[in-house]
Amino acid sequence: MYNTLGNKITLSTFGESHGLAIGGVLDGYPSNVIIDLDYVQAQLNKRKPGQSSISTPRKEDDVVEFLSGIFEGKSTGAPIGFIIRNNNQNSAEYNALKNVYRPSHADYTYTQKYQHRDHRGGGRSSNRESANWVVAGALCQLLLNIHDIKIQAFVSVIGTVKYENEMWYNTCITEQSIEATPVRCPDTDTCTAMINLINECKAQGNTVGGVINCTIKNVPVGLGNPVFMKLQAQLAHAMLSINATKGFEYGSGFNSAEMLGATHNDAFTINDNKVTTTTNNSGGIQGGISNGETIYFRVAFKPVASIASTQHTITTNNEQVELNIKGRHDPCVVPRAVPIVEALAAIVIANNL
Amino acid sequence: MYNTLGNKITLSTFGESHGLAIGGVLDGYPSNVIIDLDYVQAQLNKRKPGQSSISTPRKEDDVVEFLSGIFEGKSTGAPIGFIIRNNNQNSAEYNALKNVYRPSHADYTYTQKYQHRDHRGGGRSSNRESANWVVAGALCQLLLNIHDIKIQAFVSVIGTVKYENEMWYNTCITEQSIEATPVRCPDTDTCTAMINLINECKAQGNTVGGVINCTIKNVPVGLGNPVFMKLQAQLAHAMLSINATKGFEYGSGFNSAEMLGATHNDAFTINDNKVTTTTNNSGGIQGGISNGETIYFRVAFKPVASIASTQHTITTNNEQVELNIKGRHDPCVVPRAVPIVEALAAIVIANNL
Amino acid sequence: MYNTLGNKITLSTFGESHGLAIGGVLDGYPSNVIIDLDYVQAQLNKRKPGQSSISTPRKEDDVVEFLSGIFEGKSTGAPIGFIIRNNNQNSAEYNALKNVYRPSHADYTYTQKYQHRDHRGGGRSSNRESANWVVAGALCQLLLNIHDIKIQAFVSVIGTVKYENEMWYNTCITEQSIEATPVRCPDTDTCTAMINLINECKAQGNTVGGVINCTIKNVPVGLGNPVFMKLQAQLAHAMLSINATKGFEYGSGFNSAEMLGATHNDAFTINDNKVTTTTNNSGGIQGGISNGETIYFRVAFKPVASIASTQHTITTNNEQVELNIKGRHDPCVVPRAVPIVEALAAIVIANNL
Amino acid sequence: MYNTLGNKITLSTFGESHGLAIGGVLDGYPSNVIIDLDYVQAQLNKRKPGQSSISTPRKEDDVVEFLSGIFEGKSTGAPIGFIIRNNNQNSAEYNALKNVYRPSHADYTYTQKYQHRDHRGGGRSSNRESANWVVAGALCQLLLNIHDIKIQAFVSVIGTVKYENEMWYNTCITEQSIEATPVRCPDTDTCTAMINLINECKAQGNTVGGVINCTIKNVPVGLGNPVFMKLQAQLAHAMLSINATKGFEYGSGFNSAEMLGATHNDAFTINDNKVTTTTNNSGGIQGGISNGETIYFRVAFKPVASIASTQHTITTNNEQVELNIKGRHDPCVVPRAVPIVEALAAIVIANNL
Repeated sequence: MYNTLGNKITLSTFGESHGLAIGGVLDGYPSNVIIDLDYVQAQLNKRKPGQSSISTPRKEDDVVEFLSGIFEGKSTGAPIGFIIRNNNQNSAEYNALKNVYRPSHADYTYTQKYQHRDHRGGGRSSNRESANWVVAGALCQLLLNIHDIKIQAFVSVIGTVKYENEMWYNTCITEQSIEATPVRCPDTDTCTAMINLINECKAQGNTVGGVINCTIKNVPVGLGNPVFMKLQAQLAHAMLSINATKGFEYGSGFNSAEMLGATHNDAFTINDNKVTTTTNNSGGIQGGISNGETIYFRVAFKPVASIASTQHTITTNNEQVELNIKGRHDPCVVPRAVPIVEALAAIVIANNL
Repeated sequence: MYNTLGNKITLSTFGESHGLAIGGVLDGYPSNVIIDLDYVQAQLNKRKPGQSSISTPRKEDDVVEFLSGIFEGKSTGAPIGFIIRNNNQNSAEYNALKNVYRPSHADYTYTQKYQHRDHRGGGRSSNRESANWVVAGALCQLLLNIHDIKIQAFVSVIGTVKYENEMWYNTCITEQSIEATPVRCPDTDTCTAMINLINECKAQGNTVGGVINCTIKNVPVGLGNPVFMKLQAQLAHAMLSINATKGFEYGSGFNSAEMLGATHNDAFTINDNKVTTTTNNSGGIQGGISNGETIYFRVAFKPVASIASTQHTITTNNEQVELNIKGRHDPCVVPRAVPIVEALAAIVIANNL
Repeated sequence: MYNTLGNKITLSTFGESHGLAIGGVLDGYPSNVIIDLDYVQAQLNKRKPGQSSISTPRKEDDVVEFLSGIFEGKSTGAPIGFIIRNNNQNSAEYNALKNVYRPSHADYTYTQKYQHRDHRGGGRSSNRESANWVVAGALCQLLLNIHDIKIQAFVSVIGTVKYENEMWYNTCITEQSIEATPVRCPDTDTCTAMINLINECKAQGNTVGGVINCTIKNVPVGLGNPVFMKLQAQLAHAMLSINATKGFEYGSGFNSAEMLGATHNDAFTINDNKVTTTTNNSGGIQGGISNGETIYFRVAFKPVASIASTQHTITTNNEQVELNIKGRHDPCVVPRAVPIVEALAAIVIANNL
Repeated sequence: MYNTLGNKITLSTFGESHGLAIGGVLDGYPSNVIIDLDYVQAQLNKRKPGQSSISTPRKEDDVVEFLSGIFEGKSTGAPIGFIIRNNNQNSAEYNALKNVYRPSHADYTYTQKYQHRDHRGGGRSSNRESANWVVAGALCQLLLNIHDIKIQAFVSVIGTVKYENEMWYNTCITEQSIEATPVRCPDTDTCTAMINLINECKAQGNTVGGVINCTIKNVPVGLGNPVFMKLQAQLAHAMLSINATKGFEYGSGFNSAEMLGATHNDAFTINDNKVTTTTNNSGGIQGGISNGETIYFRVAFKPVASIASTQHTITTNNEQVELNIKGRHDPCVVPRAVPIVEALAAIVIANNL
């Protein structure tokens, strides 16, 4: 089950960036959920390239077509099959790459593993796959809405520019503030600096990494299953499945390594007759199970591997060559990854409901 | 399959810290592997408490008993069942905790999820479970030995004390240097500082977190399966399954967020007729598949939740109380977690062979 | 994973009989298998209705469209996504059934389970789903061809008419003889009697059951895994997944209950330097693992539930009513199920290679 | 997951007949079920050999030891680990078999698959494994008791002796009548004939097969999941996992092949304000989902392969030899398989609750 995520609500996907279509099957989704198709398409639009000056001008008219599992506006309990046609598949521009391995791409490992070279723009390893995840994530979010669970991600770091706010997971951040700029960071000043940095990279044919922060609010107590289905392990697995991610931390994260127990422990208390904790270094998860507090985590993204400057690499015949990648690539994919992080978080949480 | 790790070689475990025994079933393990029982027991000994002045004086005589799957010194291909008896189960000392939720432990979430209070020292949420993982990990390492794959973990951070070595994953670190001190850090000076810090915490009834670094060398090209069985996602899932872990990063990790593509990309080159990369920011994995370079990653641990000082918490009847935990607890579990990290890494790699 | 078959090569399907399309994802299929698309379509044509005077006149132009996983005529190792559009979806004729449960159909149980009534001709419970299986089975057969494994099914029983041949699994039966008549039985005289019986049922608006026999030849020794992945258990699971099947037996089957051990045991012997057995009551499987002899089994089918005569039933409001089903139904689906049995057998064997 | 049954409540087992112990892990079992240990042991006693003159005199003191998952008399929600020590492991008597393949046993296929010969009485392929299933089945039955679901199996056929009762699944059969004789058939006269036949076989060193019938009553509507988790497919899979089984049929079974639709269909009707069917050829399952009627099925068993008379076979060096098996074997295992059938049925139903 290499291309399947989840064990109760499961998403099985297929498709290459330059094939006829990508798509998936969402199985285990309960019946009688009202499916707001406009919402699903809107999420998909958030992910697509060509949205702004800071992303690739490549246009993908991602239109999802649902083939099954929905009847009279509601889910039926049967698997939901869907496809997204690939309309803008200009394979020709990849012909120059037919016999060469792009550095820090999946070209070399795929060719070695499958003994087959699909040079058409990443094929299965392309980030285009994440469009499938956004569709499934949107369906899962519709299910989470019934439980009032709210997922929100935003960009906190682009290169050396950082949104400094230690208590970000407790801050009220509106969707409008995130969507106000193409970098999807809630702070105006930081956004300006981020946009400047990305434009600088773009001008140099360079790329830059970043970090996405995410909160999941109103999660009921009891989600997640010890010892190998801990909620944080499921989230880490999902986030590290996104192309270009290099790290995951939740709650106090890597900072916790420097902390002392007396400071780190989250004291239980009663507030309004409800159990809560006075701090939330646990990140909403204790012993692998949600405790009702806000779940929050951060995901690190490396800079995109497709850069314009000359690179050293080898051919499929193991000859050393110099490579100049042409094409329409993003100087920074982190803002476009925001709906992807939200989608995978929604699938994980729905899988545990 | 909540208590099962892996899909080809699978480990299913059971057991509570204060029950009769813990144990597991390792299924899918190939036949005819020579099983060095002394090696397995030696790995188990590395994990056990009471090894030094900086760990809990609680003694656990962890002796693994293999019940099946091994015949005439070799694996048979049948599932390997094993148990470890719990000999030192002093439940009485936990009686005081019967009606109270310890902060940042799993007490509250377990009780809410299972509607049942097993107050005996963590029960299933206890780190004692990891002894099972060490047994299975040692068996998997015996399989990896055939392929000359070498896994090595060590402590790089305890609180504010850090082993500073940017190229640690390319440094030749001997097992002797790691095992030379109870903190399992390869650098003598850093070890001294770490031990001092831990002793300080111990004196104050406090605890401290840390970071473990791990390398996996000689991994063949081709391990891992896109898109949801990527090697890094499997490793992240396994590491976040360890109690007290809060983060995982591989290759360039969180640092990659600040980097530019031209610097980050790993150029392919030919060396001694072998494909290699001039840098290894990819951490030995590209597109979710091993590329033959050293795999390396880091895991963050929070400070242990069992501290000696008075804490605010609530009872199972939602009354606010002050809690003083007695018992024999580790001021810092990070050094003891080194064999656990190695074990889970071995299980993940073996699962992908 | 309700709609997924297999654990190494996995088929995940979706689609209702009267939705836009049905389809599936075949994951784990190895790379570099030459995909003969004409063969796949030919298998699909064998299954489709409207092939002869003894089947439903309803026409389904089942054209499979492959969306991924195949490049330059070969499999890539990526999941193979495919869809089959539903072109002949005359839902209107089912409107009369909107508020009534058809006897011995899935109407009642689906409505109770999903709390949702999809009255359009069976929806997910329709045998149309098996078109997906035939596509995946044909792909798996292409893989089996490389190993020279040959699967052949035929009709041995229609109602009271039986093809009497105790050693059928050792008889050389040609595909031509099976495909010579629409009932897919290799014996001409039996075919005539079967066709007469089916036509008689058709004239009366009645339906009739039957049995399909299947052989799998040239299976290598060693397929199947004890104790819960025994080859016969996987085959039984697959065959009982087909609509209308009521029983499965392999090797000596139900007859074995009457036999004595001394007669039943298959003596090992050496023939042409090859290990073989003098009899094959084991049906090619011992201890759940193939032993190199011909695997053979039989599958029982009940008569189709859609009959023309008046039936007693209830409405969705639990009122008792009389029902007359209109529409274009098969008097006997057993001949059309031959490629379905072959397809599922191919998927099971491929999954164990 | 070769040795794992189920997907929600899962049983993972280990152990060979002549190793130290067999055992298993039952995961996913809900918390707070009262565990009647005496009931579990009583079920285990029903399976053990040496119960009567018609079974093997070999004694196995099967005592189950629960190691985890039960606290203060109730399940905790954690995995239930258990072992059964092998006390009567006389391997010596199998030494004569070290280099020979017993006909119709798993010796040959296991040796070929695992390239390893465990000659000690079947090893993993031994029916001893079923003791694990009886333990897990008894635990599942305790869960089913809460829902008032009742499973009852009995012997209907031994060789040529048959319990003739077409409506057996609607007949009130008491446990006492089944347990009244060692053959576990509810009819006294049939029992006498069965015992005579078995004793005759025993005297001749021969063995005989049989059939077990099973009913599952009070199953709620809605269990089972299309299309590959159909309840009948799960039951078939489980039953074909039992050693020596050769066939499975449910409801009208193989008889349905001869029937016409107008006779076979089960008319829905209202009885006491409850939906029911006037006949039950569906065997309580429609479209793969339970419909509230009695589920019933039959399982065919071949005669045991261990016979006393001389047999032709080959050695592990492919030499043809004559074999005389010594040891203490059952002339007919079918009566002892009754609790095994019940146990697996209980596990399957519990898995679907």
